[in-house]
Amino acid sequence: MDSAGSGYRFVRAQAHAELARLAARPFDLTAPGALTSDRLRALRASGAGYDLLYGTQRVDEAALAALRALAREADAAGQFRRLMAGEVMNRIEGHESENRPVQHFASRNAFDDLPDPFDSGAARPAVALAREQLERLRVFLAELDSGAAANAQREPFTDLVHIGIGGSDLGPRALYLALQPWRQGGRRVHFISNVDPDDAAQALRGLDLSRTLVNVVSKSGSTLETLTNETLARRAFTEAGLKPERHFLCVTGRGSPMDNPARYRATFHMFDSIGGRYSATSMVGGVCLGFGLGFAAFQELLRGAREMDLASLAPEPSANLPLLAALLGIWNRDFLGLPTLAVLPYSQALVRFAAHLQQLDMESNGKAVTKQGEAAEFDTGPVVWGEPGTNGQHAFYQLIHQSRTVVPCEFIGFRESQFGNDVTVQGTTSQQKLLANLFAQVIALATGKNDANPNRRFPGNRPSLLLMGQRLTPRALGALLAFYENKVAYQGLIWNINSFDQEGVQLGKVLATRILGQFQRANAGGKPPGKPPAGAQDDPLGRALLEAARVV
Amino acid sequence: MDSAGSGYRFVRAQAHAELARLAARPFDLTAPGALTSDRLRALRASGAGYDLLYGTQRVDEAALAALRALAREADAAGQFRRLMAGEVMNRIEGHESENRPVQHFASRNAFDDLPDPFDSGAARPAVALAREQLERLRVFLAELDSGAAANAQREPFTDLVHIGIGGSDLGPRALYLALQPWRQGGRRVHFISNVDPDDAAQALRGLDLSRTLVNVVSKSGSTLETLTNETLARRAFTEAGLKPERHFLCVTGRGSPMDNPARYRATFHMFDSIGGRYSATSMVGGVCLGFGLGFAAFQELLRGAREMDLASLAPEPSANLPLLAALLGIWNRDFLGLPTLAVLPYSQALVRFAAHLQQLDMESNGKAVTKQGEAAEFDTGPVVWGEPGTNGQHAFYQLIHQSRTVVPCEFIGFRESQFGNDVTVQGTTSQQKLLANLFAQVIALATGKNDANPNRRFPGNRPSLLLMGQRLTPRALGALLAFYENKVAYQGLIWNINSFDQEGVQLGKVLATRILGQFQRANAGGKPPGKPPAGAQDDPLGRALLEAARVV
Repeated sequence: MDSAGSGYRFVRAQAHAELARLAARPFDLTAPGALTSDRLRALRASGAGYDLLYGTQRVDEAALAALRALAREADAAGQFRRLMAGEVMNRIEGHESENRPVQHFASRNAFDDLPDPFDSGAARPAVALAREQLERLRVFLAELDSGAAANAQREPFTDLVHIGIGGSDLGPRALYLALQPWRQGGRRVHFISNVDPDDAAQALRGLDLSRTLVNVVSKSGSTLETLTNETLARRAFTEAGLKPERHFLCVTGRGSPMDNPARYRATFHMFDSIGGRYSATSMVGGVCLGFGLGFAAFQELLRGAREMDLASLAPEPSANLPLLAALLGIWNRDFLGLPTLAVLPYSQALVRFAAHLQQLDMESNGKAVTKQGEAAEFDTGPVVWGEPGTNGQHAFYQLIHQSRTVVPCEFIGFRESQFGNDVTVQGTTSQQKLLANLFAQVIALATGKNDANPNRRFPGNRPSLLLMGQRLTPRALGALLAFYENKVAYQGLIWNINSFDQEGVQLGKVLATRILGQFQRANAGGKPPGKPPAGAQDDPLGRALLEAARVV
Repeated sequence: MDSAGSGYRFVRAQAHAELARLAARPFDLTAPGALTSDRLRALRASGAGYDLLYGTQRVDEAALAALRALAREADAAGQFRRLMAGEVMNRIEGHESENRPVQHFASRNAFDDLPDPFDSGAARPAVALAREQLERLRVFLAELDSGAAANAQREPFTDLVHIGIGGSDLGPRALYLALQPWRQGGRRVHFISNVDPDDAAQALRGLDLSRTLVNVVSKSGSTLETLTNETLARRAFTEAGLKPERHFLCVTGRGSPMDNPARYRATFHMFDSIGGRYSATSMVGGVCLGFGLGFAAFQELLRGAREMDLASLAPEPSANLPLLAALLGIWNRDFLGLPTLAVLPYSQALVRFAAHLQQLDMESNGKAVTKQGEAAEFDTGPVVWGEPGTNGQHAFYQLIHQSRTVVPCEFIGFRESQFGNDVTVQGTTSQQKLLANLFAQVIALATGKNDANPNRRFPGNRPSLLLMGQRLTPRALGALLAFYENKVAYQGLIWNINSFDQEGVQLGKVLATRILGQFQRANAGGKPPGKPPAGAQDDPLGRALLEAARVV
């Protein structure tokens, strides 16, 4: 099984050649008798509360066998096991890189009643820290609940403003919005992410700051947007006659510039080896979700994620939903040549889930270098996008059904609604209408339809997956989150790329700093930015763009 | 100039052959001296309050000349003029189709101080109706403002729930969220779109219904999702002891099943020939925007849209921003083969603008049939997606910078913030930081950067556009909306496809109705859905999928 030493390469795998051969004639979903009841039932896998239906993918038994062979050749499950056990796998061999383990799994390893296959493993310190922080959060929230912790007038805090960006924003925000029925006693969470000053102005507007907590989240403690927004928010508190240090919390890495207890009512820590886009189950998500939804709901979310993590260790794709979905995604991306992936939840609660997945997937696998530092001569992560159905049906599905651009779709559905507040119109409930539309799309995209009017033809053969859960509870949401995290990880392991760094964000930061220099000089001296002070680093292109855009 | 009879075909145009030849060696933005100050200044066009900078597209003078020639061969500006004049252009020749004019331009033709080039044209009736409805809205809102119209306790209405889906939701929602600084006296607008019952449950939660208006929007008056959500909302009012007909408004086509004054406090009409995705400047957007932001702000929005419409009549791309952007988009889609388009506003206020553009662009141009009913043997509209910057930088820009999947980017920026509530940190304001990041991305994507570490290389040659405005006011937002509407229209005219129908949404509706039959039978008789009543239309695949997904 341990065949994935530095010898394995995706494009050199035997299974790769076989898949390339098979992709010349992918399974035709539109052929008479191709899509049958038997196929729909047979191509189904289950785990951690979900069913994954993949009968509407363009795969036959030969393609599925070759995908399984690919997973074996890559030792995908073995690699994933080592990843979860805490091996140093965030690295590029022979080049400077982050060179550390990947430890978000530890943040939900919080349940003694669930098995721990790596009890004495390298993940131990991260698990210990995660459990310690979780206990601190429990105590902190209990004090808010009991009234032991309150504002200067002994009134309870009603609102929390979460300041973070990227991984410190998208995941927590998507999860909070997805669990509104669990909101506690009128508490509300607000989010500020963008350095655009209008973001903070809008979020702070109308809040009773005396009853508001602010949680500042930055692992490095040096994220420009977050520090700037913290300054804006502190000013608002000071102007309101309030002491920021009695209202501000922070989540940061131990020893970061932000790790300064004098400035914060409470400080929570996250482990350095947890990447931002994988941090929603750490304190990064914990503080705002615990405040807004209660500690028990956050714990349930962790339990669901942990259950999916454990299910992701199964070596066979038929028992491992993330691995199975990863393989089908690789089939679509590399062998059928489809560059995007639409994630289409039939659940309004998941309105910002695709925005989180964009970071998770595209920042992890939008890479073109192997773990050995070679140019990747194959396509990696797709462009991920999507909106909830049925809304999307009335928006962009036109292109998915009828244009030449084939878009693989991942549908997500739940048998029950969250609130259970439904109405029967024309003999069916809204939830049944929602599901009828979901299933209709799965079939229509696969089979298509001919018509005498060429403008009413549907070519079909648009592949889709259907991930079905029972009800979008905190536990189900945790499992869904981990499903996608682990799917993305599996794809990176099979492509043999490093899914855990993000060097592609650096160049923009460097250039932005230079252009900021132009602004600084303009602000400071009133000198025309065309004439920077002697010795300062000049940036002719940045200056030219500022002028062409008529900004200076 | 009138060369675009039925003889014109995109792939047969002389300019098409020339562009295909040129695309083999597109302009190399990474070559030394390629991206210069002169180029950035020279490749700039202006109109209706915006500058369009396109020096970071992969075009040289030969490609630009060929694109201009393509516009002439297609008679793009002449076709657009006929479109705006009210000619019947929503049609497929020789086949059953909607066969009507395209009249959303009329909804902002409301200003006697602006020129009207089609004063006696076919658009007159639509203009007359639009102005009449606008005046009715003005009076209605004035009565709310003065207190002449109020609830049963003579209290003012504070909240409005907007119920609609697709074009009756995405545009109004994106515009409302974009103009929060203009919100009037604490009034709030809420949106319900999805048939998912949790959408309505969440939106209605916590509202004081006695002070709430509900605006139901459906041109046909028969949209399943909207009628279902109206039923849910009416039930909530009845249960609260309130009379729905004193709280409910509607926007619909004259004579639709919804056009029933007994059921609504007020009814506003929209013209039948306005497609949903183009309806935000009609009463579809007018009622909620007027309520939330005031009539004057809505009028300013219309003025900006009208100004961009008029600027879109210029025959030369250099003076016509939508036409210029359309041509560059066609270059990227058809000649450089790039399947997606990222729209990246550096303005948090535009947080849902890309969701609106997804419908506008993908439902308009996600087509594969020409206006003559022939198979389109070329690619049409791209997959449109995006999120505001700087947020996106911390999310998906990794893929844009470093993966092999090249994503053309359309950046949108404003020189000033909306609120003007800013802070100086490290010598620059947040607005300056926002712009510095924007400009840094434009340059970084174009030029790339070499590095000894292969994981830190940026290949560059990622094309982008930069649309710069002064400040995101209602007028600037109206112009931005019309810029994209008219860009999409121009692309359809040049591709010679019908951008104004949406046959691709029909198949899903038909299949959903069949699957609903399964639910109806299950609900009614308690009979297992495997045995439908004799004579009922059976749907074996739908039933199989319901069973495979364990829903029945």
